[in-house]
Amino acid sequence: MSAAQIEISEATPLDTLRTYVSSQLSEVDDVIYNLIKSKVKLIPEISVHTIASGGKRLRPMLTLASANMCGYKGSAHIDLAASVEFIHTATLLHDDVVDKSDLRRGVFTANKLWGNKESVLVGDFLLGKAFELMGSASSLEVYRVLSHASGVISEGEVKQLEVTGKIDIEESEYFEVINSKTAELFAAACEIGGVIAGIPEKEVASLRSYGMNLGCAFQIIDDALDYSAKQETLGKNIGDDFREKKVTLPVIIAYKNATGAERKFWQESFDKNTADNPENFNKAILLMQQADAINETIKVARDIAHKANQSLQIFPDSEIRQILLDILEFVVGREF
Amino acid sequence: MSAAQIEISEATPLDTLRTYVSSQLSEVDDVIYNLIKSKVKLIPEISVHTIASGGKRLRPMLTLASANMCGYKGSAHIDLAASVEFIHTATLLHDDVVDKSDLRRGVFTANKLWGNKESVLVGDFLLGKAFELMGSASSLEVYRVLSHASGVISEGEVKQLEVTGKIDIEESEYFEVINSKTAELFAAACEIGGVIAGIPEKEVASLRSYGMNLGCAFQIIDDALDYSAKQETLGKNIGDDFREKKVTLPVIIAYKNATGAERKFWQESFDKNTADNPENFNKAILLMQQADAINETIKVARDIAHKANQSLQIFPDSEIRQILLDILEFVVGREF
Repeated sequence: MSAAQIEISEATPLDTLRTYVSSQLSEVDDVIYNLIKSKVKLIPEISVHTIASGGKRLRPMLTLASANMCGYKGSAHIDLAASVEFIHTATLLHDDVVDKSDLRRGVFTANKLWGNKESVLVGDFLLGKAFELMGSASSLEVYRVLSHASGVISEGEVKQLEVTGKIDIEESEYFEVINSKTAELFAAACEIGGVIAGIPEKEVASLRSYGMNLGCAFQIIDDALDYSAKQETLGKNIGDDFREKKVTLPVIIAYKNATGAERKFWQESFDKNTADNPENFNKAILLMQQADAINETIKVARDIAHKANQSLQIFPDSEIRQILLDILEFVVGREF
Repeated sequence: MSAAQIEISEATPLDTLRTYVSSQLSEVDDVIYNLIKSKVKLIPEISVHTIASGGKRLRPMLTLASANMCGYKGSAHIDLAASVEFIHTATLLHDDVVDKSDLRRGVFTANKLWGNKESVLVGDFLLGKAFELMGSASSLEVYRVLSHASGVISEGEVKQLEVTGKIDIEESEYFEVINSKTAELFAAACEIGGVIAGIPEKEVASLRSYGMNLGCAFQIIDDALDYSAKQETLGKNIGDDFREKKVTLPVIIAYKNATGAERKFWQESFDKNTADNPENFNKAILLMQQADAINETIKVARDIAHKANQSLQIFPDSEIRQILLDILEFVVGREF
């Protein structure tokens, strides 16, 4: 076995996090599987399919880890972690209606198997359950944080629709989209862990900032991988964003550095219906390599991850704080 | 002008209710239009279209009226009424994805104008805002009631999908669907008015029961009108339920009273793709007339409305209580 192979088989920080919270995470799973029981059969069918198809459970683990790091001694973090996962799953189900992507995490999406209406309504069901679960914390602040997040996420998704196909969007618009659609739930997931632990406001804000920047870096890398990952490693189609004309950071960087003729290519790919052509995707990748756009993108993610790291410095050193710091490295270095 | 015409132009109990709460309702509208402002342009566009296209505002008025009847002196009922309307609007937007009905309240649905994904995501945005608004009441119980309702509504919608096309469902399954998808939000809308007023639990339960039975009667009449209304009065397509193979109470009653050959007609209409044939809809109406199914349906609604009436008797007589009682008569007697 070569050194490279050994390295691959080593535990990632994500594995370390999962091990650290494993008993709590299995309680979260119990809550999840208990709540999606319904005499209406389609509900557990679709929910189990979507939840079980291998999500990383990163968001609920952030709630558990944050609560643990802040010394929380109660049990509400279990229900809140499940609530966060339900919000995320509802987003995935509703996103499937949008994206028509055939593969998510390597399996057929619920939408392909059951149709638009089922995906929408089961997503709504999970969202309702998410809000019911929040009750466990008996905290109006938890409700405030998560309901705000829920609105912001949809706002980001709608904004994403609005800028789809617009090759000349500002970088700030891109960040507006990813901060809303992705980073906000990471931020909220961390924040509520601190809220229930009753830590001072300033620390809650730091936790929120950690989650926000982590989520932002996570999405930027996701967007880079859509042009650079090996398909079998990513577990979903690469080139989805290009075909769906989502203008992501690698594209913005490549377009900014493009010559006149290259700009014309980008414009045509995103304005007209030429993005479906596989040759065009290959050309896009080539132009990105020439502009060093993927590396530039990763560099942006690294800078943002560094901010997340700084936010955690307010907390005393601990095993779980170190894991949360390591997660940052993992997120910007991952290939899947 | 004939006596009948004069009667038509008289104020309905719904008008009386609207007049009674008019200044509060205009505050609710201010909250609504303020919250759907977003720099993401599609959000106000779709929201305004859906909210402004002439809904009766019955649900938010129930929250206002309940709070008023219970002597509530604060201002949270305004935000809660807006919250209830947002939940309802989100349901309509998500239902449009399902129903593909061309007309709702006489205008094109958001879905027809903007597409599935926009309807879903703007619905989600409104749902998020609904939960944010609940914060105004600073009441965990309000969150509990409305988040429970939100889950139950979706469960009912999924159940409705499951029984679509099944001509031999039990009456109990029909009631399960309409209690969940419609009556639950009526119940919650009334209940929270009592909760914020701090009335005793028994009275809260009575308010809830009033709302539940009102909503149930409302939906039954809706289902009767889909076979019996004049299209121009109803403001939406009649025959939608038949074409979409929703097995509603008039159908259940007609089927129960049908001869062998007639049962075959009903089975074929709901099992196979023959419900789109306009002649079949005309035949369905004829069979309903023979079975007196519409009158029987209305009779069921009247009995349920009577239960709602009984629930309100626990409250002392007042102008607003009388209006809520009159609303029951209006709901079962309405032609639109």
